[in-house]
Amino acid sequence: MTTTSKDPNREPKLLLGPGPSNVHPDVLEAMAQPMIGHLDPDFLKILDRVQVRLRALFGTTNPMTLPLSTTGSGGMEACFGNLLEPDDEVVVGVNGVFGNRMCDVANRIGARVTRVDAEWGRVLDDDAMSDAIRRVRPKAVAFVHAETSTGVHQPVEAISRAAHEIGAFVILDCVTSLAGLPVRLDDWGVDAAYSGTQKCIGCSPGLSPASFSPRAVERAGNRTIPCTSWYLDINLLAGYFGGERVYHHTAPISAIFGLDAGLRRIEQEGMAARVARHRDAAEALIAGLAEFGFEPLVEPAHRLPMLSSVRLPASVKKLGEAAVRRKLLADHAIEVGGGLGALAGEIWRIGLMGENARRENVARLLDALRKELG
Amino acid sequence: MTTTSKDPNREPKLLLGPGPSNVHPDVLEAMAQPMIGHLDPDFLKILDRVQVRLRALFGTTNPMTLPLSTTGSGGMEACFGNLLEPDDEVVVGVNGVFGNRMCDVANRIGARVTRVDAEWGRVLDDDAMSDAIRRVRPKAVAFVHAETSTGVHQPVEAISRAAHEIGAFVILDCVTSLAGLPVRLDDWGVDAAYSGTQKCIGCSPGLSPASFSPRAVERAGNRTIPCTSWYLDINLLAGYFGGERVYHHTAPISAIFGLDAGLRRIEQEGMAARVARHRDAAEALIAGLAEFGFEPLVEPAHRLPMLSSVRLPASVKKLGEAAVRRKLLADHAIEVGGGLGALAGEIWRIGLMGENARRENVARLLDALRKELG
Repeated sequence: MTTTSKDPNREPKLLLGPGPSNVHPDVLEAMAQPMIGHLDPDFLKILDRVQVRLRALFGTTNPMTLPLSTTGSGGMEACFGNLLEPDDEVVVGVNGVFGNRMCDVANRIGARVTRVDAEWGRVLDDDAMSDAIRRVRPKAVAFVHAETSTGVHQPVEAISRAAHEIGAFVILDCVTSLAGLPVRLDDWGVDAAYSGTQKCIGCSPGLSPASFSPRAVERAGNRTIPCTSWYLDINLLAGYFGGERVYHHTAPISAIFGLDAGLRRIEQEGMAARVARHRDAAEALIAGLAEFGFEPLVEPAHRLPMLSSVRLPASVKKLGEAAVRRKLLADHAIEVGGGLGALAGEIWRIGLMGENARRENVARLLDALRKELG
Repeated sequence: MTTTSKDPNREPKLLLGPGPSNVHPDVLEAMAQPMIGHLDPDFLKILDRVQVRLRALFGTTNPMTLPLSTTGSGGMEACFGNLLEPDDEVVVGVNGVFGNRMCDVANRIGARVTRVDAEWGRVLDDDAMSDAIRRVRPKAVAFVHAETSTGVHQPVEAISRAAHEIGAFVILDCVTSLAGLPVRLDDWGVDAAYSGTQKCIGCSPGLSPASFSPRAVERAGNRTIPCTSWYLDINLLAGYFGGERVYHHTAPISAIFGLDAGLRRIEQEGMAARVARHRDAAEALIAGLAEFGFEPLVEPAHRLPMLSSVRLPASVKKLGEAAVRRKLLADHAIEVGGGLGALAGEIWRIGLMGENARRENVARLLDALRKELG
């Protein structure tokens, strides 16, 4: 299998940043299957299966559960774009980059944004969110389940309850949580959620698994003006992803082949085992990093298992954190992530996502750090 | 290379519809390379190379030439969304599904659309377009180079000239033309163009190669209100695709590996040979189909080489055209496309795109038709 398309000198890397994570050979091989038409019955069988498996992963019976033909950030736009119209009020919880991004996305479609900030590295305050929800009485409430910029695991239920008390829709970012933490959209009362394929699902980036409750679908059908995006309008997407399989746009066939294989692996492992594996790897990582003086940014109760954010010890700062990361990548073929925004230069973000959530990968990183930091 | 991810019973199909087309094994293998980070220097080298090759393909020196992380229809939204603001005037030439789609996309972002219709199967009328342009004095003029719904090859230069006379931007849909017909954005004065990877480029669907002139980039930077799409805003995309490689969203790594391999194949063949190959295959197809009574919808001067639209003979209508297509797919593993909109049930659309533009594929289709139609 050597072709000029492949670089024989390129060493496989261990991707312990905030995503993409490494992809299992089964998934890579699935993507390399011969092309097939997006209306071919053989392809539609695969798409059916992917949609069934995504419902299980999201913990929902929502018929409108689908792999959007965009990355996670496009999935964010799809959720906001379908539920909100210009001048609609939305309350957004912000404790990191992706909450900020939600505000930007909502502003661009003309919604009126009330942001409820929390310190980066801490969870959103349930009372502050509830107060804002009761005061503003927004059309929608949006927040992030797993903040990839800080490593915070946000409890969903209290905020979701407050939103439903005043009839608001709940939008939840599950980009980093899906397939690594339990997600239960129906139990939580989430109306629109989106994820990405390149984190705990363990596939290549390029698709955004998403789910819309029947109430969200109804809302999208009763808008005054159409969704500003033709491409992401779920009223139109329903024609293809909703049973009739009418052409809307051409689905990313190879990526869906890959997602099908990735979801099969998740099903075979079982979510309980998968969640435990992520937790176990994260515990080993935090324990091992303590030896070098890395300290977790987030308090134990709210740490994400798939993404650990750690404050840098003096040894790393002295060498220059970016220089150490470059060396890990160049000399050890290990990628870890730097901080974003105010946390740039202050933290590393170490992902143990999907296939990578294993103690052997933790050991490999710790070995490399021992060599670099003495 | 057998895994449970692959269906051993699934016969490879010959994809002679309107796209996707078949993908060369080099490209499939490139997509199956191990995952790598989207900020990894090894990946950024590939991205650089892809951008250089896309410039050559589009016939442009535009720095802002990039593979958008969306399909062709998302590329359409990117072009309209970056150049137009609410209440901006736009003149759209409409002679098929994709001109119609342009109007829908423009309306959704609040632009004022003047459509100039031509009969489906005929080119846009240069004078009708010029008259509308002079009357409306729009911010942008948009039309389709290769109408995939009808098989019409639209001349670009006269309309583009009329647009530039009044200072309008030119938006061109090159989804089906790019890599099968010469595209010369700079010579033609096109300001924003988009394509798809699954047609003549011969890759999997999922990316939209696009190009924006410096004037278009300047316009995007001087808007009164930001692009309604955060995901497609070229001001933000420039941070990643423009040299600094700052994180915006996670690029679809595997798809870009595939595009890199596909563009290499195009470069190795050379565009002159590739264009001639598409023309040769189309001529063989039209000649061969005459034997069954299929008649081209489009007059010879304006036929697309990569997509032939043909009126159905009585023999096909009698059997039911959809039934014949299903039989071609099920019994001969050949996909051809039906008509869209008013042409549904009236025409077939037969693609000979990218790798598929070869006489041997024409012969295989004609053999199958002989068996089915006697």
